[in-house]
Amino acid sequence: MAEHLSQSELDYPFKLLEYFNGFRISKIIFSACELGVFDLLLTSDPLSAGQIAAQLNLSADGAERLLDALVGIEILEVDTTQATALYSSTDVSSLYLARGSSKSLWDMIQYQSQTIYPLWNNMADAVREGKNQNEKTFGLPSEQIFQAIYRSEEEMLKFMGLMNSSWILDGHDIVTAFDLAPFKSIVDLGGCTGALAREVSRQYPSSAVTVFDLPSVTEAAQKHFTQEDDNITFQSGDFFTDVLPLADLFVLARIVHDWPEEKCLSLLRRIHSVCKPGGGVLLVEALLFENRRGPVMTQCFSLNMLVQTEGRERTSSEYIAILNKSGVSRTGKCYDAILALR
Amino acid sequence: MAEHLSQSELDYPFKLLEYFNGFRISKIIFSACELGVFDLLLTSDPLSAGQIAAQLNLSADGAERLLDALVGIEILEVDTTQATALYSSTDVSSLYLARGSSKSLWDMIQYQSQTIYPLWNNMADAVREGKNQNEKTFGLPSEQIFQAIYRSEEEMLKFMGLMNSSWILDGHDIVTAFDLAPFKSIVDLGGCTGALAREVSRQYPSSAVTVFDLPSVTEAAQKHFTQEDDNITFQSGDFFTDVLPLADLFVLARIVHDWPEEKCLSLLRRIHSVCKPGGGVLLVEALLFENRRGPVMTQCFSLNMLVQTEGRERTSSEYIAILNKSGVSRTGKCYDAILALR
Repeated sequence: MAEHLSQSELDYPFKLLEYFNGFRISKIIFSACELGVFDLLLTSDPLSAGQIAAQLNLSADGAERLLDALVGIEILEVDTTQATALYSSTDVSSLYLARGSSKSLWDMIQYQSQTIYPLWNNMADAVREGKNQNEKTFGLPSEQIFQAIYRSEEEMLKFMGLMNSSWILDGHDIVTAFDLAPFKSIVDLGGCTGALAREVSRQYPSSAVTVFDLPSVTEAAQKHFTQEDDNITFQSGDFFTDVLPLADLFVLARIVHDWPEEKCLSLLRRIHSVCKPGGGVLLVEALLFENRRGPVMTQCFSLNMLVQTEGRERTSSEYIAILNKSGVSRTGKCYDAILALR
Repeated sequence: MAEHLSQSELDYPFKLLEYFNGFRISKIIFSACELGVFDLLLTSDPLSAGQIAAQLNLSADGAERLLDALVGIEILEVDTTQATALYSSTDVSSLYLARGSSKSLWDMIQYQSQTIYPLWNNMADAVREGKNQNEKTFGLPSEQIFQAIYRSEEEMLKFMGLMNSSWILDGHDIVTAFDLAPFKSIVDLGGCTGALAREVSRQYPSSAVTVFDLPSVTEAAQKHFTQEDDNITFQSGDFFTDVLPLADLFVLARIVHDWPEEKCLSLLRRIHSVCKPGGGVLLVEALLFENRRGPVMTQCFSLNMLVQTEGRERTSSEYIAILNKSGVSRTGKCYDAILALR
């Protein structure tokens, strides 16, 4: 790996300008999602900018500029052989960006566009103060993270959609990183919509899989996110204060990274006290490299935790330091897995 | 060129996730600039995160996360051979990101971070309405673009800094794209700080070079942006309404893209009426490809014009349609040049 950007970057900083432009590329895709561009093109023949604008109630000029930029970054295709340019979807836009697709990242995009993007406008202050910017960005209390995130049913559903859609990408790799078949009862603590629990249940059909989360969350999960072939159960409670369910395996997927050290240790101690010998904890987190050089996505997540929560991302050695007998599995994607046994 | 993102992107959309992450990468660099990280490292030995935090009055934890992310994207270097990680600048950060460097993009970055980033949060509305979002973003009138941009001396200086710093990168290519030596008097209309005029004057020392801009702008330019070896003059006026100075060559650098068609034509007609035969117009703009597939940066600029101004970027054929006897020179960088003769 190069130690820094190449020599030619000194003559003209193309890469640096691309970095500066990153927020625009993000917002081009996010805006097109919000405006319904990918949903329309999923089910239609190729359309002109004027037709797309008319059907989605957009300005023709704005639509054309947005569509051309989406062609530029190869998210849409254009046919310019006729007098009027005709835009169509690509496999990637149909699979990941249209709302109805089985692998749709639509919910993740809404959340990133409407919540995370404005929060990051205050990143300099987050670094200065060492704390989240929920108050400055949205006028929300900075201490009660999940009270802020779950401040209304609408906001809660948006956040749950975000959680749900990230397991669309990484769920299968996560549940197969270790053989979990020996664990006959599995509880996903803070399991939100049950998206990861469903992956566990599909992969290990002889295990009983339970989602444990706050009452308002399990209620919304059962109301809005259940699926026909669901074979998971929901149990309500606060994992910091309520009695934990008994289980052979406790899954903590993107939970520990929300909290400061002392709260993580308190939660892990609570689990340890109910975990039988041979039972375990499956920690699912994005792992930082020990050498501080990446993964860039995880480093960005860690700053995201700074600007939004009380937590951070950690290296595998940092996690292992607080766990017994652990194995680590890097997926090479966004999220990794650590299995620790009692 | 691939027609769309590759097949493997369907298995796992790494490139798409990178696009989603673009705004974070931008803000990581922007925030570090605002916090003075690159200025400090320019003049110091390698420093620990704690030392950097102490000197810049940052939280140690926030500083460490930000520094590690800058290492991840290869903007900073880290030495992890000692017990405490030591961070240092790279050639790229010293040359382009530190404030004092001759090629510093610091002003451009401030403007992008504080003005453009928030504007782009309303891109979906800009596309819907087909107009700029100065009102929704900053409570500023959407009709009077430059009244909004120049709403205070501080804002005017920020904008002038932005203009100034972009010619640091592209100025030399622009003024050498055509041989301008035959033009003995050259006026840069809307020439702002005089940055491009200075490049012209350096390259063509026997030509008299004048910057023509609004009175408040020429005043601020002479107060804040003059250089010791300056050989350019300033003249105040509004190029839409006041008498234009006589000249052999009129430079319009990133002027036409601010305005709708009818205003551009009005301005070009005014120039035509004072331009002698053999005189010319040098148009400096980022040119869109005719095939709608790029350059991505220019497509982003065009959406930027939508969200901030009344203008747009155009293809060379669109510009040539409104000019006489034109030649086009693409620089392969951000900005291109068109020379038209009367």
